[in-house]
Amino acid sequence: MATLCKPAVAVPEHVITMEETLALARTRHADHPQLPLALRLIGNTGVTRRHLVQPIEETLRHPGFEQRNALYEREAKRRVPDVIKHALNNAELRPADIDMIVYVSCTGFMMPSLTAWLINTMGFPSHTRQVPIAQLGCAAGGAAVNRAHDFCTAYPDANVLIVACEFCSLCYQPTDLGVGSLLSNGLFGDAVAAAVVRGHGGIGIALERNHSHLVPDTEDWIAYSVRATGFHFLLDKRVPGTMEPLAPALREMSAAHGWDAGDLDFYIIHAGGPRILDDLCRYLEVPPEAFRFSRATLTEYGNIASAVVLDAVRRLFEEGAPPDGARGILAGFGPGITAEMALGSWSTARPVHDPVLSTRRVVGYAPRVTRRPPVTVTVTAPLP
Amino acid sequence: MATLCKPAVAVPEHVITMEETLALARTRHADHPQLPLALRLIGNTGVTRRHLVQPIEETLRHPGFEQRNALYEREAKRRVPDVIKHALNNAELRPADIDMIVYVSCTGFMMPSLTAWLINTMGFPSHTRQVPIAQLGCAAGGAAVNRAHDFCTAYPDANVLIVACEFCSLCYQPTDLGVGSLLSNGLFGDAVAAAVVRGHGGIGIALERNHSHLVPDTEDWIAYSVRATGFHFLLDKRVPGTMEPLAPALREMSAAHGWDAGDLDFYIIHAGGPRILDDLCRYLEVPPEAFRFSRATLTEYGNIASAVVLDAVRRLFEEGAPPDGARGILAGFGPGITAEMALGSWSTARPVHDPVLSTRRVVGYAPRVTRRPPVTVTVTAPLP
Repeated sequence: MATLCKPAVAVPEHVITMEETLALARTRHADHPQLPLALRLIGNTGVTRRHLVQPIEETLRHPGFEQRNALYEREAKRRVPDVIKHALNNAELRPADIDMIVYVSCTGFMMPSLTAWLINTMGFPSHTRQVPIAQLGCAAGGAAVNRAHDFCTAYPDANVLIVACEFCSLCYQPTDLGVGSLLSNGLFGDAVAAAVVRGHGGIGIALERNHSHLVPDTEDWIAYSVRATGFHFLLDKRVPGTMEPLAPALREMSAAHGWDAGDLDFYIIHAGGPRILDDLCRYLEVPPEAFRFSRATLTEYGNIASAVVLDAVRRLFEEGAPPDGARGILAGFGPGITAEMALGSWSTARPVHDPVLSTRRVVGYAPRVTRRPPVTVTVTAPLP
Repeated sequence: MATLCKPAVAVPEHVITMEETLALARTRHADHPQLPLALRLIGNTGVTRRHLVQPIEETLRHPGFEQRNALYEREAKRRVPDVIKHALNNAELRPADIDMIVYVSCTGFMMPSLTAWLINTMGFPSHTRQVPIAQLGCAAGGAAVNRAHDFCTAYPDANVLIVACEFCSLCYQPTDLGVGSLLSNGLFGDAVAAAVVRGHGGIGIALERNHSHLVPDTEDWIAYSVRATGFHFLLDKRVPGTMEPLAPALREMSAAHGWDAGDLDFYIIHAGGPRILDDLCRYLEVPPEAFRFSRATLTEYGNIASAVVLDAVRRLFEEGAPPDGARGILAGFGPGITAEMALGSWSTARPVHDPVLSTRRVVGYAPRVTRRPPVTVTVTAPLP
């Protein structure tokens, strides 16, 4: 069974505190008619500090989209490999054991994606599948887990590396002065996270079911305006209210699995903001401490986009493993508005040290039962 | 078994011929020291005409990255739905039957991707998985087929819609004057393609195996420079020579499947340019007519990026179906340099009209054998 092993997470060395953020907002937007509202919203986030890839003075400058992307590439190449090594160690695997890399990042754009460089420089096999996703935003962490789960379901011997690289500070747009933009400037942080989904073995969350849900007609509630100055983040004020339509999707998935979404042992929820967490707690009728991992991520790192769910899973591990079989839910939310959700149970199955598996050289994947229709016979029904 | 059904393809109404392209190059680059070389390279492509989303006069203007992306979105919303409807008809399915949309496009950037709008406007279920891929370039057509194959392998009742929307003319950069850029200006065309991979039933290519291969240390051979003016396509002059390292990957995948890559019944190859096709023919020791579908795409539409392989599959269908069990290969090539390859055999299994399947409401996916470890027992070995 596909198991999400312990994630590795690194945050950059430059730190900005809530107090510094509020002071900056007061200085830079002294004449803004909605400054008091913006300050109150930032204060309400509960984000005590965030980490940035460069000092705040540099962050506040906009050197142009080209320089920003060059900086994204440089910082990604500098910071991602160590996080991956750590995640591989956590899963007791080597680069040669990885069959697919799902690389999610919405805060910089490269073609080819970083996956090609990672394969070339870190010793991943040349047959490693590359799944780079830039357009699912904060939901991409959940999507990465789910697509890894799907791949291991198709090919149970496979292992998938997930990487979420989010340098949200590189999307800071000094000319965006709406309240949603000012709030975002105080909410998002930078981080790199990685984790392995092992097809066999591994300690962590054994993935049992996944689900996706799009809230109808909300495409423009969370969006990028793509301009010469880069990605401009548009946040509709209705977004914090989206747990009302999304909570039933979590309940529905759980019920289909014979579980009660309000009575699980652990919760890994995208920490989009405090209202998201408060509302979902209420709709699922769970106590606030059930979301303690996500709340800690939000408080200590801010909203780190697709990396939130992986950081919250790391905190679940570090609190001390839950008992075997403990049941939990993982949910990423992002543009669409899309939720990518999963159910899993804690598993302490030991890593499999299978010499055949660990020295294998996979040449393509074929389903376990491969049927080739005889040339002269018309197949009239599919095989199961 | 996952079956790639007949693709639908639409090309825009504005046409530019080879003669017009050459005349334009002569006029616009009269003083270019390498004009004769550029003209020869363009002439050698064999691209007799290409289709563009706007008249050539508009295409040659650069209104800015923001306008280009707005145009991308408008044209995609205008042109994609009909192609999808056609592809669904080809597969004898309705939007309600689709479980995942893999949307590949490297010539415009939207967040959220077009998938959210498609789900909202075309009646796809709210649980449809969205896999938007922007960073695999021309290889993304093959990648889309392969990820659809993987998904149907994991969940045999699922159906996946693939959409490739490529408006390459929106990446025209008038200030890029290298020979590679001038060649690209005469090579790429616009097109929208879609196809369904059915988990059960369907007439088409029953997908049996897929494989990926990255040519080591070629990350910067095909790349975008991302700037305030948008995506600038960088094409290294070594790219046409990449069939030498890629042909063995095709042979290796085929051999692992018990097939000989040089002795298959149909070939669907990315028509990156004439040298790609000529070289691969030679390395695989197959006659030139084996690549007739890809050659026709190149001649009539130009290199339409990720849509090439789907258009070539469409031509395979339209030539008249091969005999049941006919064996073939599909290969997309793109940045990385990455090849996404598949093997399949022709299948005329009838579509399954299963009332349970076609009225189902899927709430999440779980592998067929779901194991939940008992809470009090430590699982010491994974189940198969």
